[in-house]
Amino acid sequence: MKVLFIGDIVGSIGRDALESYLPRLKKKYQPDAVIANGENAAAGRGITKAIYQDLLFMGVDMVTMGNHTWDQKEIFDFIDEVDYLIRPANFSAEAPGRGMATLTKNGKTLSVINLHGRVFLPPHDDPFQKADELLAEAKAISPLVFVDFHAEATSEKIAMGWHLDGRASVVVGTHTHVQTADSRILPGGTAYISDVGMTGPYDEVLGMSKEAVLYRFKTNMPTRFEVPKRGRAVVSGFFTEIDDETGKAISCERIYINEDHPFRG
Amino acid sequence: MKVLFIGDIVGSIGRDALESYLPRLKKKYQPDAVIANGENAAAGRGITKAIYQDLLFMGVDMVTMGNHTWDQKEIFDFIDEVDYLIRPANFSAEAPGRGMATLTKNGKTLSVINLHGRVFLPPHDDPFQKADELLAEAKAISPLVFVDFHAEATSEKIAMGWHLDGRASVVVGTHTHVQTADSRILPGGTAYISDVGMTGPYDEVLGMSKEAVLYRFKTNMPTRFEVPKRGRAVVSGFFTEIDDETGKAISCERIYINEDHPFRG
Amino acid sequence: MKVLFIGDIVGSIGRDALESYLPRLKKKYQPDAVIANGENAAAGRGITKAIYQDLLFMGVDMVTMGNHTWDQKEIFDFIDEVDYLIRPANFSAEAPGRGMATLTKNGKTLSVINLHGRVFLPPHDDPFQKADELLAEAKAISPLVFVDFHAEATSEKIAMGWHLDGRASVVVGTHTHVQTADSRILPGGTAYISDVGMTGPYDEVLGMSKEAVLYRFKTNMPTRFEVPKRGRAVVSGFFTEIDDETGKAISCERIYINEDHPFRG
Amino acid sequence: MKVLFIGDIVGSIGRDALESYLPRLKKKYQPDAVIANGENAAAGRGITKAIYQDLLFMGVDMVTMGNHTWDQKEIFDFIDEVDYLIRPANFSAEAPGRGMATLTKNGKTLSVINLHGRVFLPPHDDPFQKADELLAEAKAISPLVFVDFHAEATSEKIAMGWHLDGRASVVVGTHTHVQTADSRILPGGTAYISDVGMTGPYDEVLGMSKEAVLYRFKTNMPTRFEVPKRGRAVVSGFFTEIDDETGKAISCERIYINEDHPFRG
Ligand SMILES: [Fe+2]
Ligand SMILES: [Fe+2]
Ligand SMILES: [Fe+2]
Ligand SMILES: [Fe+2]
Ligand SMILES: [Fe+2]
Ligand SMILES: [Fe+2]
Ligand SMILES: [Fe+2]
Ligand SMILES: [Fe+2]
Repeated sequence: MKVLFIGDIVGSIGRDALESYLPRLKKKYQPDAVIANGENAAAGRGITKAIYQDLLFMGVDMVTMGNHTWDQKEIFDFIDEVDYLIRPANFSAEAPGRGMATLTKNGKTLSVINLHGRVFLPPHDDPFQKADELLAEAKAISPLVFVDFHAEATSEKIAMGWHLDGRASVVVGTHTHVQTADSRILPGGTAYISDVGMTGPYDEVLGMSKEAVLYRFKTNMPTRFEVPKRGRAVVSGFFTEIDDETGKAISCERIYINEDHPFRG
Repeated sequence: MKVLFIGDIVGSIGRDALESYLPRLKKKYQPDAVIANGENAAAGRGITKAIYQDLLFMGVDMVTMGNHTWDQKEIFDFIDEVDYLIRPANFSAEAPGRGMATLTKNGKTLSVINLHGRVFLPPHDDPFQKADELLAEAKAISPLVFVDFHAEATSEKIAMGWHLDGRASVVVGTHTHVQTADSRILPGGTAYISDVGMTGPYDEVLGMSKEAVLYRFKTNMPTRFEVPKRGRAVVSGFFTEIDDETGKAISCERIYINEDHPFRG
Repeated sequence: MKVLFIGDIVGSIGRDALESYLPRLKKKYQPDAVIANGENAAAGRGITKAIYQDLLFMGVDMVTMGNHTWDQKEIFDFIDEVDYLIRPANFSAEAPGRGMATLTKNGKTLSVINLHGRVFLPPHDDPFQKADELLAEAKAISPLVFVDFHAEATSEKIAMGWHLDGRASVVVGTHTHVQTADSRILPGGTAYISDVGMTGPYDEVLGMSKEAVLYRFKTNMPTRFEVPKRGRAVVSGFFTEIDDETGKAISCERIYINEDHPFRG
Repeated sequence: MKVLFIGDIVGSIGRDALESYLPRLKKKYQPDAVIANGENAAAGRGITKAIYQDLLFMGVDMVTMGNHTWDQKEIFDFIDEVDYLIRPANFSAEAPGRGMATLTKNGKTLSVINLHGRVFLPPHDDPFQKADELLAEAKAISPLVFVDFHAEATSEKIAMGWHLDGRASVVVGTHTHVQTADSRILPGGTAYISDVGMTGPYDEVLGMSKEAVLYRFKTNMPTRFEVPKRGRAVVSGFFTEIDDETGKAISCERIYINEDHPFRG
């Protein structure tokens, strides 16, 4: 199975860039399934139902989330009604939504798991233990398992990669909004990258206006961070081909598109 | 001026890998100067005088440090006596050592500045303000300025890149031990990468034994983190060519060498 | 000089409790000056001009602030126009307002300094160094110096007490909203308490609705914290008598009033 | 049942002060049981078997711990062999030791539960949920339940107080080493105090040499924190009388003894 993952989509620049590049990426990589992290899709903060539907319309098959899951209040109204949106599985048992979903495309069934880190972040349930539980469930359905681990610290992400090596097909990190160069297939057969990076403004700070962020760092004063509506874009993704029988990754490739690294079809 | 930077050297695997690859990297890139982050050179924690001298013997011209600066107690004995070792400039005014040094190679003079981030880290002096102060000093000597910003958060590093864009020749991040894929020349002419990544064990967690790190994450119990002495290595670097007149970066290139990404001469 | 300090006033319950008890406290203690921390006076978040004027009308002579200083946007309009409102002095040099002010009452002149901690809090300027600078300024005016150190960690507060012992007349902690029992006169003559505690709702969590706070702790889900408008109150204060000549504290006394510890006139 | 609790015993000054005052406290309060937090009993870091036995010899019936539980490596050798030492119950399932123990004295059976906070601390298991689980177990044995919640933030401690109000007999906070003045019986019948404070050096910072702590705060440089061996002591405790039938607290009293607040028999 071929899976294309798109990193944190930030605001309208991110959504527009995805709309522009997804057809070309699909043509190039011929993915069976497209997964995208949508936690910043609505102006940098969460996702709305309209934007979720928009992403599906563009060709995304599954949306994952992260610390910004609840930023748009309307999420509480639709998260339990939609089929292709998951939030970190190690959120509270009382949180609406779910943390794993299954996708069948071209006769191949893939489980997608979303997890949240705890280093420099709130004390969610143990993601390592939750991963074990969900993996057991997923493996009962299909050997194909994709994990989006939304976390800050490189140590926690790499540890998760090793923890799941040979058990998950793919483990990608999200949240830092900067793509890492460490994509690889771990010895046990799991495709891994510490962070896929973001899809959104190329000339700001994690997608937020650089003037505002710099003001905050220089003064520790409150500022409203906004996602600019105009400017150059970056598209960050990760493509993996998985062996349908074994669930092991056969190959993986970083996707990083911007004016300094133009798309090559 | 051509400058080669080597990211956090971790333990003997890192030092051995550097010894093995530095001659090849020098042959390929013909750098005028080689800078290396040595904060983890001594078994993952700090640097000793013998290791500092070793790095110089291998061909390193300047060593930068980070949060592990003081881990080896003997640093207090030699930091004020050696010429090519700097520690973060925004450490306390009472800290020994200095945070900027100047290097003249092939008739070209480069100032090297080491700074430390504050997000998820101790409240050192303001690195943005300190950067401004040192940049003024450096520019009085030469237009060529190299900054190693040792920091955790991508937001703080990118903000520093924009803060210094057009004023420093190069801004590299270190500390996360994972190379980022976002190397670029910013619009003002500063070569930038969020993190160069580490030079050390390839199959562990930031260079530390993955079994120990995983045990810590799974149990929150104390464990001693050790750098393994055997295993495959990764070498992470960043090469920049700087215009000698303007101090602007002309080109930059990520260097990432391991069995999955073999060196190409 | 006799100085009465009132800890973080939270919302209308806090303001009403102060209005009710301040006359009785004035009658009992006969303070020359009354200082109050007002960072939570406006519904738990910051202060408005109307509330500031209200506090003065009630008999407060100087208002100090903390991490909530900027919560009410109108503060930016009046902070530089009013005479008896200070915010932490180790905020950015670019922040409006000031961190020290002088008060003359009954012929006695007292300098009031507001500082902010950094443990578990943003990296403001060094409060220990800033304290030294301001103390020098203050001592040039009068030996009477009162410090409100708004900080979280007991270690940082006690360290500040020792740092200023014999140099400031009084060092009180604020911010945790819970009064500590460690009031004392340090060997050098400085009256000290780690935290004065809050003036506001007695049956909630730091003044915020306990249901909301418990929901947050149990689920890590977002919730809006509100200050209830009805319920029992607590009044927390600290009274010090200072020698006018030497600036040393002669005596100090915790004030803690609620239904379990009723006021005794 | 009458229960005397002694807050974090720090080093030999703390142990000596306890030895000196415990007989007097026993005479005054006639407690059926004495519980003491021993996480800093061994020179500020953890506890040894000899010190544990010493505390029992002095008259302590149960020792609770906290974040320093594992500081003395020998704890791993004896924690599973001794009967009256518990460590936070929400530590990992893989941690040795246990988090609840039962004590029968004068025909009355008391369950003692130790829990650990997560605000500004590592992501241990959820203490609120763990409290519910253990309370159910404890209530099956006896209505008398004592909880030592070792935590930093006042918000988390107060929230735990409300969470257990009417279900636990007593909830005391430990860890900040500073006694709070907010002791009370909550409306549901649970005796509560945010922090009992420490038993150890009176003129240092949380028991550690103030010179070292101040140096750290002023410079952010590494320093070894040591507990002085000589100096004045403080003894901090909390006494509760519990109704044997209902398990509700009848009365509670802070105990705070030092030269400024001498013991009154
Ligand atoms: Fe994101
Ligand atoms: Fe995120
Ligand atoms: Fe490092
Ligand atoms: Fe580092
Ligand atoms: Fe407050
Ligand atoms: Fe505050
Ligand atoms: Fe503790
Ligand atoms: Fe302690």
